[in-house]
Amino acid sequence: MSKPVVLLMGPIHAPSQARLEATYDVRRYWEAPDKGSLLDAIAPHCQCIVTNGGRGVEAEVMKQLPGLKMVANFGVGYDAVDVPYCQARRIGLSNTPDVLTEDVADLALALLLGSLRRIPAGDQHVRSGAWAKGGMALTQSMQGKKILILGMGRIGQAIAKRCLAFNTEIGYSGPRKKDGLSFPYFADVVEGSKWADVVVAALPGGAATKAAMSRAALEALGPQGTFVNIARGSVVDEEALIELLGNGKLGAAGLDVFYNEPNINPAFFGLQNAVLHPHQGSATTPTRDAMGDLTLANVTAFFAGQKLVTEVLPVHY
Amino acid sequence: MSKPVVLLMGPIHAPSQARLEATYDVRRYWEAPDKGSLLDAIAPHCQCIVTNGGRGVEAEVMKQLPGLKMVANFGVGYDAVDVPYCQARRIGLSNTPDVLTEDVADLALALLLGSLRRIPAGDQHVRSGAWAKGGMALTQSMQGKKILILGMGRIGQAIAKRCLAFNTEIGYSGPRKKDGLSFPYFADVVEGSKWADVVVAALPGGAATKAAMSRAALEALGPQGTFVNIARGSVVDEEALIELLGNGKLGAAGLDVFYNEPNINPAFFGLQNAVLHPHQGSATTPTRDAMGDLTLANVTAFFAGQKLVTEVLPVHY
Repeated sequence: MSKPVVLLMGPIHAPSQARLEATYDVRRYWEAPDKGSLLDAIAPHCQCIVTNGGRGVEAEVMKQLPGLKMVANFGVGYDAVDVPYCQARRIGLSNTPDVLTEDVADLALALLLGSLRRIPAGDQHVRSGAWAKGGMALTQSMQGKKILILGMGRIGQAIAKRCLAFNTEIGYSGPRKKDGLSFPYFADVVEGSKWADVVVAALPGGAATKAAMSRAALEALGPQGTFVNIARGSVVDEEALIELLGNGKLGAAGLDVFYNEPNINPAFFGLQNAVLHPHQGSATTPTRDAMGDLTLANVTAFFAGQKLVTEVLPVHY
Repeated sequence: MSKPVVLLMGPIHAPSQARLEATYDVRRYWEAPDKGSLLDAIAPHCQCIVTNGGRGVEAEVMKQLPGLKMVANFGVGYDAVDVPYCQARRIGLSNTPDVLTEDVADLALALLLGSLRRIPAGDQHVRSGAWAKGGMALTQSMQGKKILILGMGRIGQAIAKRCLAFNTEIGYSGPRKKDGLSFPYFADVVEGSKWADVVVAALPGGAATKAAMSRAALEALGPQGTFVNIARGSVVDEEALIELLGNGKLGAAGLDVFYNEPNINPAFFGLQNAVLHPHQGSATTPTRDAMGDLTLANVTAFFAGQKLVTEVLPVHY
C-alpha cells in the first residue's frame, strides 16, 4: 500500500518534519512552484493537512481538497486556520496545547523582567564600552507591581504563578470570570489597565480578540506602564502601540509577536523602550520536540480512524 | 553648633546624597584635587565615613583619621571596606541589607531567563531586520533545570523562591549546610556544578570567596551550562570564564558584576553567549531610595550615640 498523502502548508520543526516525511507522502505546499497543479494532483486522495500556527490554512486551499477530513496544527494557536470553514465542512482540527505552556510563560517573564530592568539596553551599555564613561540610569522595579493578565487560560495561569514569586499582585481580564480563581477580575480591559502597572496579553488570536488591548487600554496603562505580548500581534492595536511608545504615553513593551510577522512594521526598530523578540515563545528544543510528537500523534490517530489526541474539532470519519 | 563632618568616599544615590549634604558637613573625597590636604583638614573632627559598595574605603584613608568611629556602607556588600582594619581599630560598620534583596533576586532571574532564552540576541535579531530573512535558532528551556545557588543567604533564598515557580530543581553550595533548608547541599562547588545545569552566584565578595567559582567548577558546568553572577566579579575565576565562554566549554553566562568594573576586560564585549549588565542589581528607584534611607538612618543613629540600625560591626562610643 502506498503511503497516505499529507499536505504540509509550511515548514515545521525539522526533526518532526523528517519523521512526518518518513511515514507519509508529504507534499510541501510552500515550495510548490504551481500551487494549483499540486492541489489538483493530490485532490483525489488527500485527507490530511499539517500546518504551523503562523501559516495556518485558508478556505481557498481546503476547497480544492474534497476528501479533506483533518487539519493538524503545529502550535496551540490555530487562529490562522479558517475554523468556520472547517466547522461548516465538518473537518477535524488538532493543535498542540499544554506542551508549550511553560516555555511561553517563561518567555513572558523574560520579556517582562527584560523590559522593567532593561536587559538588552544594559547589554548594549556594557558591550559598547559606555559603562566606563558612566552608569546606566535607574530602572523600574518588579516589586509590588500590579499585573493584569489578559486571557487567564493555561498560559495566563502559568504566568500568574511565576509573577506571584516576585511579590506582585495579579488581576485578570477575559471573556468571563473564572471559577476557582481569587484574583480580581476586570470585565473591562480599560478598567483593568487603569488598575495595572503591567498588562500581559496571553489570550488566543483571531477575530474575537482583535485589538482587545485597545488604544484606550494602552493609554490607561500609561507612561509608567509596561505592555507584554506573548499571544498574537492581532490582540493589540499595534498602530496605537507604536505611537504611544514613541511619544512616551506608554512606558515600555516586551513583544514576542507582531502584526504580519516576520515582515513587521519597521517603526519598531527604533523604539528604545521596547524589548523585541522574534516569536520564540515555544522555540526551545525540548518543547518543539514535544510539539512535533503531539502533531504526529494526532496525524497517526487520524489515519488509524481514532479520536484525535488533542482535538479542537472532531473528525467525521 | 556646626554640622558634624562626614567624609563621603564616592557618590551615592543623588537624592540620598542631597539629604546627607543638607544635614552634615559632607566632604567629597573623590572630587578633592589633593586627598592628603582634605584628610589633614578634617582629621581633628571626622568621626564618620560614608561610602558606596563599589568604592568602599581602604586602611590608608582610615589611618589618616584618628577620630574615625564609624563607616556607613551604601550597599549590602562591604567587601571593598577593609574590615580587618576596622575590627583592629574597633571602628563600627553598617550596610544596607534586606532592602535590596528582592530587586537583586529579580535581576538574577532576568539574567538567567535572558541567557537561556537569548533576550538581547532576540532583540537584535528583530531590530536589525534579520527576522524577515529567517528565524532565530531554538534556545534552551528553563523547564526542569537543575540550579545550584552558590551562597544561600537572603538573596540566594529569594532567587530559589523565584526559580521554584519555573519548575526547576534547586541545590546550593556555601560554607555550611543551612538548617531548615531541604534543598540538596554540595560542600564542594565542583561537585555541585557537575550536578547543575545552571549556577547562580549570590555569595558575598572578599578574600574568603575569591574565585569560589573556579575554572574546575566552570568546566564541570560544561558546554550546556549557564553561569549567572549577581554577586561580585571576584567570586569567579574571570580569566577562565572568558576563555571557556570563548571556546564553548561553558555554554552561556548572565553577568551583572565584573572584575575592575566599570573598566572591565574588553574580551567580554565580543562574547555572543553572554548577557552583560552594568551592575544594576539594586539599581531601581524605590530600592535606591530605601538604601539611602537606611544609610542615613545608620549615620543618624551614630551621631545620636545609638546602636546602628543595620550593624555589621558595633560602634565603640
